[in-house]
Amino acid sequence: MEFRITHRSKDCRARTGEIELPSGDFETPVFMPVGTKGSVKAVSPEDLGEAGVRIILANTYHLYLRPGHRIIGRLGGLHRFMNWSGPILTDSGGFQVYSLTPLRTISEKGVTFQSHIDGSRHFIGPEEAIDIQETLGADIIMAFDECVPYPSDYDYVRRSVELTTSWARRSLDRKRRSDQALFGIVQGGMYADLRETSARELVKMAFDGYALGGLSVGEDRATRLRVISETVDFLPQDKPVYLMGVGTPEDLIEAVILGVDMFDCVMPTRNARNGTLFTTTGKMSIRNATYAEDGRPVDENCDCYTCSNYSRAYLRHLFMAREILSYRLNTIHNLSYYSRLMADLRTAVQEDRLFEYCTKFYGLQEKGIG
Amino acid sequence: MEFRITHRSKDCRARTGEIELPSGDFETPVFMPVGTKGSVKAVSPEDLGEAGVRIILANTYHLYLRPGHRIIGRLGGLHRFMNWSGPILTDSGGFQVYSLTPLRTISEKGVTFQSHIDGSRHFIGPEEAIDIQETLGADIIMAFDECVPYPSDYDYVRRSVELTTSWARRSLDRKRRSDQALFGIVQGGMYADLRETSARELVKMAFDGYALGGLSVGEDRATRLRVISETVDFLPQDKPVYLMGVGTPEDLIEAVILGVDMFDCVMPTRNARNGTLFTTTGKMSIRNATYAEDGRPVDENCDCYTCSNYSRAYLRHLFMAREILSYRLNTIHNLSYYSRLMADLRTAVQEDRLFEYCTKFYGLQEKGIG
Repeated sequence: MEFRITHRSKDCRARTGEIELPSGDFETPVFMPVGTKGSVKAVSPEDLGEAGVRIILANTYHLYLRPGHRIIGRLGGLHRFMNWSGPILTDSGGFQVYSLTPLRTISEKGVTFQSHIDGSRHFIGPEEAIDIQETLGADIIMAFDECVPYPSDYDYVRRSVELTTSWARRSLDRKRRSDQALFGIVQGGMYADLRETSARELVKMAFDGYALGGLSVGEDRATRLRVISETVDFLPQDKPVYLMGVGTPEDLIEAVILGVDMFDCVMPTRNARNGTLFTTTGKMSIRNATYAEDGRPVDENCDCYTCSNYSRAYLRHLFMAREILSYRLNTIHNLSYYSRLMADLRTAVQEDRLFEYCTKFYGLQEKGIG
Repeated sequence: MEFRITHRSKDCRARTGEIELPSGDFETPVFMPVGTKGSVKAVSPEDLGEAGVRIILANTYHLYLRPGHRIIGRLGGLHRFMNWSGPILTDSGGFQVYSLTPLRTISEKGVTFQSHIDGSRHFIGPEEAIDIQETLGADIIMAFDECVPYPSDYDYVRRSVELTTSWARRSLDRKRRSDQALFGIVQGGMYADLRETSARELVKMAFDGYALGGLSVGEDRATRLRVISETVDFLPQDKPVYLMGVGTPEDLIEAVILGVDMFDCVMPTRNARNGTLFTTTGKMSIRNATYAEDGRPVDENCDCYTCSNYSRAYLRHLFMAREILSYRLNTIHNLSYYSRLMADLRTAVQEDRLFEYCTKFYGLQEKGIG
């Protein structure tokens, strides 16, 4: 992996860059849609490309359980399996083990857990997480970590950071493939000194990038921004910074200002399937009766496939009738919105007018849907 | 509407032809996928085009109830509403009124019924059916008919044929738009003489084409083929013959031999969503564990988007994981299969080797999935 910073903002920590990976290149800051089970829900790889998506995330935990990483490996790896030739990042499975499984036991060795699908018992430690991710074959893989619940008391988080640090070391030691980049994950709950400890320990190791984990777990926005800001201070300036599982357009803008380069979140895709569409003038619930006879596109400022070809009235009809096409058209729009947001942010950073962009963005959002 | 017969088989009633409509031309025999509520389930207009689809059917009953034909009319008609620029045929709503509504009362005037969605009361007679279809704006519209249950006693069907004949007359009288073709629907249950009566009465009127209704309602295959054969005898040779709601690939082949030009059925799309895929060597249930590691395409003889890009293993995974993409990829394949089947039948008719084609078709089907 190559990471080149192309511009640093004069006013804040924001920067633009380029990441080169075996499956392709892209500019940062970048948003990665989530393809949990080897499919970004409701859309095809071609749809993703047309929506401006350059890298996607897939969930190791889900693919490990179903269809199984070995099957994917024998069929030529995840890129070929899902017919997506661009870059892929896989998470380590840690987050899902803590958030989805009915029972789990954590030890120094790793985590024993029950499948949320059939209750079968499994074990994943740092070595297994790396092995699985090497078999899946993503361009970027993640170290195994413990994601602590929120809130957690100081002593628990302190011990957890020690575990995550040790697992990060073992993840690095286990790595065999030279064509995959490996990122470490900073934990430490909402405690500034533990985030610092976690970051300092990981930076001692030769990771290709650094992720901020354990956020968007229930903390308020101010706390989240504080933790991001305090953590980024201790990360090397020449490595990509990846904020995991965040978030709304506003979250992305603020995190870019704080120096974050990469994002993933189910927000655009999940909202699309719930009928919530992002527009330059705010969020729209397409089920609203207001749109029953509205012949306009979702967003007059959007040139995505959905906005180029379908009216609000038709999209409302599809959603109310639970037509499968509804989920695809809504998802294409929301992903296009996120791609354009990131492209606009990159341009604003490069032209040193990020705050001007923010002022305009929030002004338009307050205007509301026309 | 123009209908030109391009070839008549030497051995049977099969023929090929061309139909010209305001929204486009296509060759017959043709299969029309069903876009019940203004969307062929799980696919986009572009997907349809790539799958070789040239004309689709939409259901008047469903669109009348939701979103309402007037809304569609005010938004520029059904073609524009659903972004499908090719030919559309709308049914008259009759079949759904009889098959879906919880309560209905039939009189000489028309049918009073309750919506299957919210129980609201509605009335549709031949005049209303034509008005609604003129507002929707399809290229081909259908006369309002009574579709009798199976089995029904002779006297009931006899009186029903009289009603259908009278409604056909009134449908013709009501028609105002000159850019839409209007087809009459032959009824008569499984009674040869009533089918003859129905056909003879309709042929006296100036319909642009003739449909066989009231089939695929529970009768056995032999009865269905007998009724098709007996009815086609009484229809004019220079008008398209449309067999409504039928059916399997085998049904289509046999009906083509009997002189049918047009078909519609939910079979390829509904089966796709249930994981049943059509192939040149028979039907495949993609959920079968046999395919868990099968890297081959669904059908080695198929060049559709799905077969060109995805393995049986991936399609099985998507289906088992209930991923939305599963329904789209399966539907694209099944529609492509039906398009190719019809194209192969047209070629076989034109080259006067239809029976050779049938022998090969049934031979391959018996071979089973490899």
